[in-house]
Amino acid sequence: MAKENLHIIKIGGNVIDDRESCDKFLNSFAGLTGLKVLIHGGGKVATAIGERLGIQSNYVEGRRITDDETIDLVTMVYGGLVNKKIVGRLQSLGCNAIGVTGADAALIPAEKRKVAAIDYGWVGDIKVERINVDGWLRLLSAGWMPVVAPLTFDSEGHILNTNADTIASALAIALSDKFATSLIFCFEKDGVLADVEDPQSVIRQINPEQYAALKASGKLFSGILPKLENALKAVERGVSEVVIGNSEKLADIIAGISGTRISK
Amino acid sequence: MAKENLHIIKIGGNVIDDRESCDKFLNSFAGLTGLKVLIHGGGKVATAIGERLGIQSNYVEGRRITDDETIDLVTMVYGGLVNKKIVGRLQSLGCNAIGVTGADAALIPAEKRKVAAIDYGWVGDIKVERINVDGWLRLLSAGWMPVVAPLTFDSEGHILNTNADTIASALAIALSDKFATSLIFCFEKDGVLADVEDPQSVIRQINPEQYAALKASGKLFSGILPKLENALKAVERGVSEVVIGNSEKLADIIAGISGTRISK
Repeated sequence: MAKENLHIIKIGGNVIDDRESCDKFLNSFAGLTGLKVLIHGGGKVATAIGERLGIQSNYVEGRRITDDETIDLVTMVYGGLVNKKIVGRLQSLGCNAIGVTGADAALIPAEKRKVAAIDYGWVGDIKVERINVDGWLRLLSAGWMPVVAPLTFDSEGHILNTNADTIASALAIALSDKFATSLIFCFEKDGVLADVEDPQSVIRQINPEQYAALKASGKLFSGILPKLENALKAVERGVSEVVIGNSEKLADIIAGISGTRISK
Repeated sequence: MAKENLHIIKIGGNVIDDRESCDKFLNSFAGLTGLKVLIHGGGKVATAIGERLGIQSNYVEGRRITDDETIDLVTMVYGGLVNKKIVGRLQSLGCNAIGVTGADAALIPAEKRKVAAIDYGWVGDIKVERINVDGWLRLLSAGWMPVVAPLTFDSEGHILNTNADTIASALAIALSDKFATSLIFCFEKDGVLADVEDPQSVIRQINPEQYAALKASGKLFSGILPKLENALKAVERGVSEVVIGNSEKLADIIAGISGTRISK
């Protein structure tokens, strides 16, 4: 029997920060038929509220250090403000959303990152094989559309900060045994651009060989490389397809006429 | 067939504000067998964070006015910070908690309070008959222990502030068709005191006649009167029992040897 389709869709901070983009996206998301999970980042609102609270953002090598005050800040903002606003809006659009973090129903257990050269603080690393597949199946079979804040927890009950892209990939891989999972990363561009200067130069399809050639060419925007490597790993580990596309074109992405498809 | 027992337990802000009391309570809650729901208030942490953010608390006739900034504040603090910390701690104690607001899975629909003499702002009034009983049954039958933040939502998707006592009572009444519901209000005293000055003077049992006599005597602490009237309404409307007791004596309350029992 063919597996049921499951769309796992991640939206980044830029989409959340722009009310109009976010509303457009949520409208399309609500209209999407079938099983779906939404994973959201935090956006600038955490930084803005942190500044008002006098909490300084500390970065080491481009990564935010999650100290005691910062984990409270992101627990409030990601798990409360952003998550519940999205849930409320989806409910008003007829989409039966339920907001969760990885701690709720023990959906995404994690481990606090070990202190090595850098102490990242309250940051959680997840293992695909520890994701609570049974919990996810219960949520989805109840007819609910999970909206996931990028927070996990450890065995001592601490809430941990975890990258939203990482959660999306791990979840898609973990649920691939049960569903035909499509993993969709939505951002503000139409896809991966062959030429950073040309928004029309979307690459429609990338497989491992094409990726190697593109990487060697040096033309890709460097920020996209880890995303593509993650995507290739996900399809390697059972995810049906990964698409990177524009949050305002979700229906077209699903229809296969927009975005960059990453396949084996 | 006898209905299965369901404990609906509300803890107030004072318990949440005191780390030691809160941990004691959560330990007992985690150890409680059978179906259970925890409803928490917000505590002083919302006011403290609001002050740091420069959000002023406005009260009219003892009730907080929930303006635009305040609803964002309580959505963050109640729905994010307080709720997820409790969920994390319960998970570490082996209790499979899931944190929700009334918006999640459309569990508690509400209506924004009509503006009359006072505009309370983003405050939600709930009707027992609109509570999503099917959603609650799905949560409970999944083996999850719901932890409820005192937030609801309206049909336009706005998050609304709703009193935690009110949510606890309405939920206990709504679920009384399906379960033998015990509604337990936990606070920092051992129960309703016959003499406010004497913490040992706990009244063990109150029925409507006894309540009328106690009220007429003028000896009760006035703040307890609305709580008792709510409790009497709840037992009138099908709740098996309502108990008011000490958050640090939850096991004794459940065992029937502590607290004030309100019955028909």
